[in-house]
Amino acid sequence: MYRPQIKVLDCTIRDGGLANDSHFPLETVRAVYKACCDSGIDYVELGYRNSKAMFDPDEFGPWRFCDEKDLRAATDGIENPGTRISVMMDAHKCDPADIIPCAESVVDTIRIATYVKDIDKAIRAENAAHENGYETTINVMAISIESDFDLDPALEQIEKETSVVACYVVDSFGALYSEQVDYLVAKYQRIMPTREVGIHMHNSQQLAFANTIEGIIKEANYVDGTIYGLGRAAGNCPLELLLGFLKNPKFDLRPILDCVAHVIRPMQENLDWGYMIPYMITGILNQHPRSAMAVLKSHDRDGYRAFYDQMLEAVE
Amino acid sequence: MYRPQIKVLDCTIRDGGLANDSHFPLETVRAVYKACCDSGIDYVELGYRNSKAMFDPDEFGPWRFCDEKDLRAATDGIENPGTRISVMMDAHKCDPADIIPCAESVVDTIRIATYVKDIDKAIRAENAAHENGYETTINVMAISIESDFDLDPALEQIEKETSVVACYVVDSFGALYSEQVDYLVAKYQRIMPTREVGIHMHNSQQLAFANTIEGIIKEANYVDGTIYGLGRAAGNCPLELLLGFLKNPKFDLRPILDCVAHVIRPMQENLDWGYMIPYMITGILNQHPRSAMAVLKSHDRDGYRAFYDQMLEAVE
Repeated sequence: MYRPQIKVLDCTIRDGGLANDSHFPLETVRAVYKACCDSGIDYVELGYRNSKAMFDPDEFGPWRFCDEKDLRAATDGIENPGTRISVMMDAHKCDPADIIPCAESVVDTIRIATYVKDIDKAIRAENAAHENGYETTINVMAISIESDFDLDPALEQIEKETSVVACYVVDSFGALYSEQVDYLVAKYQRIMPTREVGIHMHNSQQLAFANTIEGIIKEANYVDGTIYGLGRAAGNCPLELLLGFLKNPKFDLRPILDCVAHVIRPMQENLDWGYMIPYMITGILNQHPRSAMAVLKSHDRDGYRAFYDQMLEAVE
Repeated sequence: MYRPQIKVLDCTIRDGGLANDSHFPLETVRAVYKACCDSGIDYVELGYRNSKAMFDPDEFGPWRFCDEKDLRAATDGIENPGTRISVMMDAHKCDPADIIPCAESVVDTIRIATYVKDIDKAIRAENAAHENGYETTINVMAISIESDFDLDPALEQIEKETSVVACYVVDSFGALYSEQVDYLVAKYQRIMPTREVGIHMHNSQQLAFANTIEGIIKEANYVDGTIYGLGRAAGNCPLELLLGFLKNPKFDLRPILDCVAHVIRPMQENLDWGYMIPYMITGILNQHPRSAMAVLKSHDRDGYRAFYDQMLEAVE
């Protein structure tokens, strides 16, 4: 019943770090890492490896940089029967010189996040990571606002100029409907026939899990989830739902359920994520959630009609 | 771009009544009714018309019975440019003698909810409603646990023995995935070629909106939503998301947004609904949410692992 080619990546700490400037306590990162190892998740992404010249280490937590010493502190002493460790680098906010040889690192996989306009920076970073011995992917962000005119040649470059195992459809705005997922997955497969397709969805319209299933139906094999959907704004595809859908007996849901109960749900006291009307509005209007995040921090967080009208004006 | 045949029904008060024994204050029902009228929603369902011999009026609120005087109190003085009023009758918990002639009622449409085993009761109630001048539908509940062996002849009876405009796929357990929605919609269309297909989804797995879209893609034209997803357990397809997806310019999202802000969200202080891990567990195991509702009212509402193991034992 299950498709063994499907690889599940947990990016709770990495995408959740966009909600708290990557300020997770070490014990939280260890708990998420342990839950993923115990559940048999294929990959766990412990943060960004971005440049300290572009992000102030006094402002951002350690999981924005993923220094080796911090990654070792997060993983040492935890039994890992086969979960690979990933970090993400933003093409336009990383320094390829920060990549050390894979043999000296706890990291197995480096994922390069990029906008289409930064594709050459992404390829430079990917090439550096690959030359240093890492498995690599490229994750094309904000895909819902890219034109075919710009996207298609970028995908052609990825096919010709990189060694990525997968290239991801990243719905940063939570704007895609299932038929658009179909269209993009088919395009990726056509232009990059030697690479796997990946799926990373946001939940602005409560479609993150559904669109991930849609990608899987269309033969995308690399799929992202986060525990209880923790992530920027409305969050991501909930990992626990994904494991329930995938029938691979190697996955054990229980450690993820424990992590929700004891680690992730308690964070809701200080951190907001999940479905809220302002995110729904930016999602249906195909806009970055930053305006919604701002209104939710304002004194008028329930002024939905005014926010909707303001966003409609912004897109006209 | 839009399909004018699509009819949207709001069942906030009816399905939400399963979360609070239909104890909505009159002002809440008036506010929901007004929001639906102002937004151009096709139908608004104001409750059940079930039998007072089967539900104790001292225990259940007025929207479990929808007496004409209560419906008039809920609707009098509110401008309605074209929203039809619906009530639901449970096939096994209603008395067809409670149906008065349509000309004497504020109700336009009667929807009969039924399990497959009660199909003859459903048809009797539908026939009585149709003879009294109402538009009718039949809504087949708990569809995810019905066998083709039982379901197919029931659908044949509906096609032959009733005057329903639509027959609904009702995913009471929130257990269906998109491919199962496809299968059921195609079956309905094949067995009932002269009737429209309806879709009523629950959100146990965050798939209510996605599965409603899936039904629409497959030509289902009658779709249910509730404001902010209010409904039993994990709730329903959020009406605001549905309006964002449908491009019909007759719909205005703003009155629904106002209703979320001023009426529905404030109810969350006293009423729980929406995505929670116990509902996810009953959803993935294709079980009625009642066990999850019970555990969420217990002292161990975060004992997810124990609940999961207990439910696994129950289905073995």
